[in-house]
Amino acid sequence: MTDDSWLEVSSGSPFPVENLPYGVFSPPGRAVPRVGAAAGAPVLDLGGLLDNPVFARPSLNAFMARGREFWRATRGRLLDLLTGPAHRDRVTRHLVPLTDVTLSLPIEVADYVDFYSSLHHAENLGRMFRPGAEPLTPNWRHLPLAYHGRAGTVVVSGTPVVRPCGQRKDPDVPTPLFGPSTRLDFEAEVGFVVGVGSTLGRRVGAAEFGDHVFGVVLVNDWSARDIQSWEYVPLGPFLGKSFATSVSPWVVPMEALDGARVPAPEQSPAALPYLRNGEDWGLDLRLEVVLNGEVVSRPRFADMYWTPAQQLAHMTVNGAALRTGDLFASGTVSGPTSDQYGSLIELSDNGTEPLHLADGSARSFLQDGDTVAITATAPGLGGRPIGLGQVVGAIRPAAVNASR
Amino acid sequence: MTDDSWLEVSSGSPFPVENLPYGVFSPPGRAVPRVGAAAGAPVLDLGGLLDNPVFARPSLNAFMARGREFWRATRGRLLDLLTGPAHRDRVTRHLVPLTDVTLSLPIEVADYVDFYSSLHHAENLGRMFRPGAEPLTPNWRHLPLAYHGRAGTVVVSGTPVVRPCGQRKDPDVPTPLFGPSTRLDFEAEVGFVVGVGSTLGRRVGAAEFGDHVFGVVLVNDWSARDIQSWEYVPLGPFLGKSFATSVSPWVVPMEALDGARVPAPEQSPAALPYLRNGEDWGLDLRLEVVLNGEVVSRPRFADMYWTPAQQLAHMTVNGAALRTGDLFASGTVSGPTSDQYGSLIELSDNGTEPLHLADGSARSFLQDGDTVAITATAPGLGGRPIGLGQVVGAIRPAAVNASR
Repeated sequence: MTDDSWLEVSSGSPFPVENLPYGVFSPPGRAVPRVGAAAGAPVLDLGGLLDNPVFARPSLNAFMARGREFWRATRGRLLDLLTGPAHRDRVTRHLVPLTDVTLSLPIEVADYVDFYSSLHHAENLGRMFRPGAEPLTPNWRHLPLAYHGRAGTVVVSGTPVVRPCGQRKDPDVPTPLFGPSTRLDFEAEVGFVVGVGSTLGRRVGAAEFGDHVFGVVLVNDWSARDIQSWEYVPLGPFLGKSFATSVSPWVVPMEALDGARVPAPEQSPAALPYLRNGEDWGLDLRLEVVLNGEVVSRPRFADMYWTPAQQLAHMTVNGAALRTGDLFASGTVSGPTSDQYGSLIELSDNGTEPLHLADGSARSFLQDGDTVAITATAPGLGGRPIGLGQVVGAIRPAAVNASR
Repeated sequence: MTDDSWLEVSSGSPFPVENLPYGVFSPPGRAVPRVGAAAGAPVLDLGGLLDNPVFARPSLNAFMARGREFWRATRGRLLDLLTGPAHRDRVTRHLVPLTDVTLSLPIEVADYVDFYSSLHHAENLGRMFRPGAEPLTPNWRHLPLAYHGRAGTVVVSGTPVVRPCGQRKDPDVPTPLFGPSTRLDFEAEVGFVVGVGSTLGRRVGAAEFGDHVFGVVLVNDWSARDIQSWEYVPLGPFLGKSFATSVSPWVVPMEALDGARVPAPEQSPAALPYLRNGEDWGLDLRLEVVLNGEVVSRPRFADMYWTPAQQLAHMTVNGAALRTGDLFASGTVSGPTSDQYGSLIELSDNGTEPLHLADGSARSFLQDGDTVAITATAPGLGGRPIGLGQVVGAIRPAAVNASR
């Protein structure tokens, strides 16, 4: 449908016209960020192009709250504008080179929930955190496990990540130690952004996924494994995660991923009725984790045991309300083989088998100065693959006075 | 200092002039709620009385964000106005009878964190959730354990609580069941409201408590014990809590509690340096839990092992930022004796010893139609006790189609 766009997009671009992800940007000299869409290399300034105040805001929330029909109409209008040669001059005035802009956190995050939906990741982590016990807890195959994370420390790609301090407990020392984390890790995840909220006390079914979920971001759920393993029983992860969670700046609308939908893996035992999908919401997203410029893993989202529609149904089955801006992440995307693991603790087998990098160095966990980038591509509707952009972050040393 | 207020406050009122808690209210016919202070039985309309737009907002957040000096100046100004006879006529015009107004959620909740800081409660729950194991996990005495809750389902006192549905696992059935919770409970807690945020990557010390924390609310952390016990390993409480958390409508400023400050219980072993208090932030708050009109427990906040200043220091020690509107709750306030337990699961010994009520009925857990109210008083500076008002909620039956 968009082969005839007048916009020239280089063949390797993650943002062909079939994609059109939304973000929030500031060109130089403009103080207040506003909504744009990535169209090839430039950013299309929607606040300037479209006559609607929802695009003049510093987050996508007002746009997202308008609902699915408005999302469809907006996307349709943009495709028209980028296809019809008659619009070329008018639209071109609102194209800003990507290199000239600053990208902001695209959404005001309401609640942030992190799932744990990769069978392979859960088994790998279970073996490391609870050696000698069954890797999967008895509940794992019956419900998509999750916890609430810290919404206020969700940051946009590019934000530096300061190595966190905290308590850790070494097995051979009787009392906990305090200091900078020595087991800092990444987790490659996919995040789903809620556009339309729901009413307290009313559950949202899996079949309503498309009415509530606006789009997808990439997530790096930075994790301090030493802090996490000491604190997490019985209330779950807290400070081991809450120092930073990075997201990609472009939210890819669900509609752009229609060509990426695949059946989810078969579940055994069968899930309870409220978790059975009306539709397939498996997604063929192919992730790459890049550590200091080198690809270290290629996780595939299609391997995830629990789908995002099941996650949504579970999260609300107790009557919990959704709000515009809620973000729920998949949990680490790990496949069955070691070249598909989405965290360093898995890639280094709990730190015992350091990962050897091309520069001759080795990593059990992240070092100060390390940069982690996560990217992903998906089949597009028009045959061309589309990209989710990237989420990148570099590790800064712990703050001074970190030893006590 | 305020003995000579011209405002007549009945001797039993929780809101003498020494208290002056802040809330958000709508008188009949005014669509947009705004900030008020409870002054005896009436509400003082600060949006009308004080010439500052922060009081014309539908939440306390803008006011709270202005910081401690502004909080002090506002309180001082209000005490002046309520004391000087010359102001009587002017102020009286802005007094609205409490019975005429609707009270709203006083804050826009940013992140909600729930601690677990009563030694007695943690020991009681540990025995029930992990029978045969040591009740306290090894980390409990080294750090104030906590998890993030769902900010979007924090509701104001009076909001009905719909019995949640979810999975539970009975020990004698091999697979989980689905349906309305059969072990619905309350938890009497005290919540602390953050007024001034902090910078990502910088910890907030215990000694900075007064610069960041604006005031106190009462919290009922409704809990579905059957859902919670099946889901909580290894990621902590999620759907067992996220269906509703009720808070009292009046935020008592920290300054009003200067007369309630007491030394915290001694801690053994000594906490790590970052958790040692610069100041005593134990608080002599005396709670009452009222079930269907009958007092069933009298927990004392002064018994809490971890103080709110320690909680604040812990929550940010990894560099996690605070935001205006963050709410952190103490965890269930339980004392050493059974007439001081802050939850029904403790009062009924895990449901094995039902609580006998004056009307002849018995409760292991909450029934549809039950009403739970939590109140608290504290010593005031002027000799008169002050009150925190109340948080109340009634249980509504589960939604229809709740069986699958």
